[in-house]
Amino acid sequence: MPTLGIDLGGTNARAAVVDEQGRILASAKVALTERSPMAVVEVIAQAAASAMAASGGAQVRGCGVGAAGQIHRDSGVIAVAPNLGWRNVPLGALLAERLGHSVRVVNDLAAAAWGELHAGAGRGATDVYVVFVGSGVGSCVIANNQLVRGAGGVAGELGHTKVIPNGRRCGCGELGCLEAYAGGHNLIAQAREVLLAGRSPGLAELTEGDPSRITPLTVERAAEAGDPAARELHERAGQMLGMAVANMVTVLNPARLIIGGGVLLNCPGIRRYVVEGVQALSSNTSREGLLIAEAELGDDSGLIGAALLGL
Amino acid sequence: MPTLGIDLGGTNARAAVVDEQGRILASAKVALTERSPMAVVEVIAQAAASAMAASGGAQVRGCGVGAAGQIHRDSGVIAVAPNLGWRNVPLGALLAERLGHSVRVVNDLAAAAWGELHAGAGRGATDVYVVFVGSGVGSCVIANNQLVRGAGGVAGELGHTKVIPNGRRCGCGELGCLEAYAGGHNLIAQAREVLLAGRSPGLAELTEGDPSRITPLTVERAAEAGDPAARELHERAGQMLGMAVANMVTVLNPARLIIGGGVLLNCPGIRRYVVEGVQALSSNTSREGLLIAEAELGDDSGLIGAALLGL
Repeated sequence: MPTLGIDLGGTNARAAVVDEQGRILASAKVALTERSPMAVVEVIAQAAASAMAASGGAQVRGCGVGAAGQIHRDSGVIAVAPNLGWRNVPLGALLAERLGHSVRVVNDLAAAAWGELHAGAGRGATDVYVVFVGSGVGSCVIANNQLVRGAGGVAGELGHTKVIPNGRRCGCGELGCLEAYAGGHNLIAQAREVLLAGRSPGLAELTEGDPSRITPLTVERAAEAGDPAARELHERAGQMLGMAVANMVTVLNPARLIIGGGVLLNCPGIRRYVVEGVQALSSNTSREGLLIAEAELGDDSGLIGAALLGL
Repeated sequence: MPTLGIDLGGTNARAAVVDEQGRILASAKVALTERSPMAVVEVIAQAAASAMAASGGAQVRGCGVGAAGQIHRDSGVIAVAPNLGWRNVPLGALLAERLGHSVRVVNDLAAAAWGELHAGAGRGATDVYVVFVGSGVGSCVIANNQLVRGAGGVAGELGHTKVIPNGRRCGCGELGCLEAYAGGHNLIAQAREVLLAGRSPGLAELTEGDPSRITPLTVERAAEAGDPAARELHERAGQMLGMAVANMVTVLNPARLIIGGGVLLNCPGIRRYVVEGVQALSSNTSREGLLIAEAELGDDSGLIGAALLGL
C-alpha cells in the first residue's frame, strides 16, 4: 500500500502518494499563505487530499514529513523552524489527528537523503554520506541502513563545522563555520562585498554592476574568466568543502558519497573541487571502494524519502 | 552465561571471562613469542583456557576479539595488522575452529568503545563518540546503539583526517594527517627534532638532553614552563585535536563524548585543549545536552567490549 510524503518548506507544502518502491503516483503543491501551525496543518491536509484524489483515491497507510528545521528526535515536535517562525510545534501530533494516520516528522535533509538512499543515487548501499550545498551546507549520515539523527536530532550539520576559528560570522550566529564561506547564500554575500568595493571587474561585467544578479554560478564564471577576487572566493569555498567532505569520508568510510543541492549540481567548478578534494585528502583505506554519485531525484527526494520513512 | 573477550595486541594476547554486565570474572595474559597466525591462535587459546580455569571453569557462550588492525566488516578476516605483520588472516574462522565457539572480530578501538558504552563512561547512552589519543589518534562512532564500522570496516580514523593539506608526513604515508601532529608518537618525534636542533632549552633540561626520555608529558611540562618550541608543538597538537573533535560533535550530535588513551588521560593540558575546543567550536545545537566524560575502564575496555560484542 502506498504512503503519503510531505515536504514542508517555508513557502509551500507539497504532498505525494508514493509506492513502496519510491515512485511518485501523484502529487500536489499548495502555497502557505499563513504560518500559524493550524493554518499550515490545513494546507498540508489540503495538499494531501489533492494528491490522494489525483492518484485515483489511493488508500495510504502512513505519512512522513520532511520539514526545514530542527526536529526533536522521537516526538515529531519541531523545535525550531526559522522559515516558519516556529518554536516547539508538535506538528506530528497535530497532523496525525487531522489526517487520521500515524505521522513521522524528520528534518528535510534527512528525508531527502533517505529518498536518495532508497530510490536514487544510494540504491543498494547501507552506508552513505549525503552532502547538499545550496543556499546552506548540510549533510546526512546513513550507517547500517539507519539515519544517524544524533542524540538531539540535529546530526549532519556539516555547514556549522568550523574551518577558521573566530572567522567570518555565519547565519547561525557563530564564527568561522564552513557555511559562512561555502554556502550559496554566503558566497553571494561575499561576492557582493567585493563587487561593491570595486574589487571585481569580472563580476561587474557579468552582472552589469547589479549585485542582485550575483549567483554562485556568476561567481564561478568570473573566477574561471580570471577575476582574482572571484577566484579567491570560489577557490576558498571549493577547497574548504573538499577538505571537510574528505574528512567525513575518512571518519565514516561510506560505500557511497552522494552530492546534491543547487550549488553542487549547478556549479561544475565547485563540484570538481569537492570530488578532487575527496580523492586527494580522504584516507586511502576509507576511499577504497567509495563511489561518488550525484543526487538523482532533484526536488522530489524529500517527498519520496518522507513517504518511505512514513512506512 | 558469560562470554570470552580477547584483546590481541602486538606483543600479548589477553583473555577474560566477562559476565553480561561487563564485569571481568577472571583474566589471563600470554606473551606472543611468534607471530604466525597459527602460533597466535595457540597463544589466544592458551590465554582463554587459563582465564576459564581461573574463573572456576565457567562455561562461555561466545567469543569476541578486539585486534589492532583493519578488519573486514563481516567475515572476521584481518585485512592488515601492522604490529603482527599480517595480511588477510581469517582469524575469526581459525579461532572459531580452535575454540569451538562462534567468534566475532572487531578493531581494538571499536572493542574499547563498546566496552566503555556498556560498562564504562557511556552507560545509558545510545549515541556516543569516543576519541582515543595515545601513540596514535583514533575514534569510534556509536549511533542508534550500534557501532558505525563503515562500508569497509575502517570507520573512525579521526587521526587520518587532514588538517594541513600537504603537511607533515604521517606514519600511514599520507601528508597532513591530524595524527602526524597530535598523536603521541609524532608529538615525541617533533619534540626530538627541536631538542636535537638545540631549539628547546626546556626539553633539554627536563630530559637531560636525552631524546629517548621525551614523552608527551615532558613536552607538556616544557610547554607549561614557557619553552617556546615545546609550547608551539603542544598548542598546535591541542588546538588541532580540539577543532577536529568539535567538528565531529557538530556532525554526529552525540549524547556523550568519551575521551581516553594515554595522551588524553595523562596530559591534563592537552585534555583541556580538547574539552575547551569542543566547548568553543562545536555548534551550539549539537552541544546542547552533551556530556564529556573520561574513559573509565582503562586497559580493560577492549577486553570487556570484545566479550560483550561476542554475545
